[in-house]
Amino acid sequence: MNSNCIVAQSGGPTPIINASLQGVLESSLKSKKIDKVFAARFGIKGLMKDNVFDLTKEDEKQINLLKNTPGSILGSCRYKLKHFNKNTADYKKIFKIFEKYNIEYFFYIGGNDSMDTVDKLSKYARSNKKNINVIGIPKTIDNDLVITDHSPGFGSAAKYIATSVMETALDSRVYQRKNVHLIEVMGRHAGWLAAASALAGQSGLNTPDLIYFPEVVFSTDKFIDDLKKEAEKKDNIVVVISEGIKNDKGEYISASETSKHDQFGHKQMGGAAHSLAPYVKEYIFKRVKVIEFNVLQRACNHSASLIDLKEAYDCGKKAVEIASHKQKTGKTVIIKRISNDPYKSKITYEDVDKIANKEKKIPRDWINKEGNFVTEQAIKYLSPLIKGEPAHKSKNGLPQYSHIKAAATVRHKYEI
Amino acid sequence: MNSNCIVAQSGGPTPIINASLQGVLESSLKSKKIDKVFAARFGIKGLMKDNVFDLTKEDEKQINLLKNTPGSILGSCRYKLKHFNKNTADYKKIFKIFEKYNIEYFFYIGGNDSMDTVDKLSKYARSNKKNINVIGIPKTIDNDLVITDHSPGFGSAAKYIATSVMETALDSRVYQRKNVHLIEVMGRHAGWLAAASALAGQSGLNTPDLIYFPEVVFSTDKFIDDLKKEAEKKDNIVVVISEGIKNDKGEYISASETSKHDQFGHKQMGGAAHSLAPYVKEYIFKRVKVIEFNVLQRACNHSASLIDLKEAYDCGKKAVEIASHKQKTGKTVIIKRISNDPYKSKITYEDVDKIANKEKKIPRDWINKEGNFVTEQAIKYLSPLIKGEPAHKSKNGLPQYSHIKAAATVRHKYEI
Repeated sequence: MNSNCIVAQSGGPTPIINASLQGVLESSLKSKKIDKVFAARFGIKGLMKDNVFDLTKEDEKQINLLKNTPGSILGSCRYKLKHFNKNTADYKKIFKIFEKYNIEYFFYIGGNDSMDTVDKLSKYARSNKKNINVIGIPKTIDNDLVITDHSPGFGSAAKYIATSVMETALDSRVYQRKNVHLIEVMGRHAGWLAAASALAGQSGLNTPDLIYFPEVVFSTDKFIDDLKKEAEKKDNIVVVISEGIKNDKGEYISASETSKHDQFGHKQMGGAAHSLAPYVKEYIFKRVKVIEFNVLQRACNHSASLIDLKEAYDCGKKAVEIASHKQKTGKTVIIKRISNDPYKSKITYEDVDKIANKEKKIPRDWINKEGNFVTEQAIKYLSPLIKGEPAHKSKNGLPQYSHIKAAATVRHKYEI
Repeated sequence: MNSNCIVAQSGGPTPIINASLQGVLESSLKSKKIDKVFAARFGIKGLMKDNVFDLTKEDEKQINLLKNTPGSILGSCRYKLKHFNKNTADYKKIFKIFEKYNIEYFFYIGGNDSMDTVDKLSKYARSNKKNINVIGIPKTIDNDLVITDHSPGFGSAAKYIATSVMETALDSRVYQRKNVHLIEVMGRHAGWLAAASALAGQSGLNTPDLIYFPEVVFSTDKFIDDLKKEAEKKDNIVVVISEGIKNDKGEYISASETSKHDQFGHKQMGGAAHSLAPYVKEYIFKRVKVIEFNVLQRACNHSASLIDLKEAYDCGKKAVEIASHKQKTGKTVIIKRISNDPYKSKITYEDVDKIANKEKKIPRDWINKEGNFVTEQAIKYLSPLIKGEPAHKSKNGLPQYSHIKAAATVRHKYEI
């Protein structure tokens, strides 16, 4: 009798995270070594609570739509396992579930924290002689995973950001008046998404004008000076700000608002762009618009990158191959770039402890000396990742998103 | 010798406003009665200042891209002419420009204020025996123009809103925790865009949960009661709020924040959703996310509706026919709906004074009794307008937007 596999998702969603899930499922179904494909809801936390269902029982049509569906369809969690030298309680729960469902392969789609889970579970399995192969499948819009050339999910978020910056720039030029648009994008520790906004300029639109990154110490005085220089040249200025910009004390610019409270005494967290708007009003132009791309940049499957989507799917497929055919454990799938033009990549794998808990930042020389734009090297790296448009499966003018019955609990079973 | 025409854009941009411009241009070039097609920058204000250029000299490739380019490419203005009984100064300036360029036809692409300009200019021309035909071409994402079944631009904004609400809903369900997403959409006086968010529910996603409209008096108590009822049923609540909701005194909910000032003493205008977030935190769930679709909903050509795009183009074409072949003036193009399924419409025209300065609100019986969602009648009306996807002309993963050289002034010539 063959054994089964189980798959789960962890960390923040990406526009194409479910493509990797589809890759795992379709490849597992073809594998002679795997019988059933189980899925856990809400990552490792749901798995521990036996929030598990048989993915192979789902409707084929809905499975085919997975790659076109944003927002971790299995549900997600942010949960870090303690080391099994210190506490084995979680491990016992997890391996009990593995035993219950006759699991031999566990696939975890996640970022650098989730890779820590993969690392610990595979090491625990080995040291306890459990026959379980644990493989990580990378995903993050932040693109902050090391070793892999880039992370599935990033290209689609980057494409959405570049497109939306183009559209914002065109909108900013409509009226005959001076204005500044402050656009805030995600990226708490790494500025890859902010950097991707520079691709908007590749369209010939000459936008954005300035970009600020968590990698460079942020000074409000320097920011105002930069804007003053732009204001000498143009009347409509578009600035992209990473949510993670920090001052020379290492404090988030967004945190400068935390002293404010609403009428009920709740702390009000202002974003970085909202914090900076009053300075722009005072020293540059009175018309300032703050635009936060918010969750849309990680949920925008409707403008996914075809290259990103394909790679995400292939990463899922590769994980099954590594685990079942090659019988490896404690590995993560990674992407290697072979060439830029034409863009070619190869999906391969690496030891997961090389990727877990680490963060890849933008190399300093990919940001200009002023610290307010990217260099040509960054553009060369970023450009291929947003290319291509998937065949959209629209119905009545709206994207068709997958409905997995077992994942469609309106009310969550376990409230935190 | 033939005469020439001039075209301009006015009011807020729409995702497909330039499709009407392309319709005017291509139809004028085919017309035997029209030689040159001039365009004025920044609406009637730019026209008065002779900010005029010859559109026929632009590159054909860039003209072909107009329909796929958001954000009034000619520039826009918000300017109301005084009646010529009171002040003829503006009229004299305008008709001097018409004379200079040998203009016989003036096409103005705009909303209800712009239709007032069309009305006044055509009446002035008639009473002063000037041989100028003035025709309005409707556009507004707000869909608040009377007589016409709907307004070009609305369908594309509606499609973007419905799609983005779907994506927000999927994102809201990722983590196993209770949350409320407050989405704010445009619509100062009419709630058509808020209503369009209900189309997201047609996808089977069961979202949004509540919608609030400017047409219904807003009560914060009632709002909290509505949310409490939803919170009994589900853990992830998505609410769509029109920016124009008002309390029983007729005050904007967003205005309740105006007493706040930033560190420089600038007044801080909070949006309606931001104003309501503290109440939701206090009485419903602690996790509240405010999402403003902001300018993207009027600039989102990348997710345009094909039906909307075609109609916008056809409205431009029709304007030329009315003015030059039928020799009419003081008219506006309008859309008549012939059938819903299959959707059929007819582009025709009406006296412009029937549309100028008026606002079409959502009929009260298209909103439910509770005042927090639409009825089936609204869905039937809205559904066809978002249908179809235009063939996207992408290059390197980004939309190709038109660059009209004469409209590409980085610094505006005339600062207000």
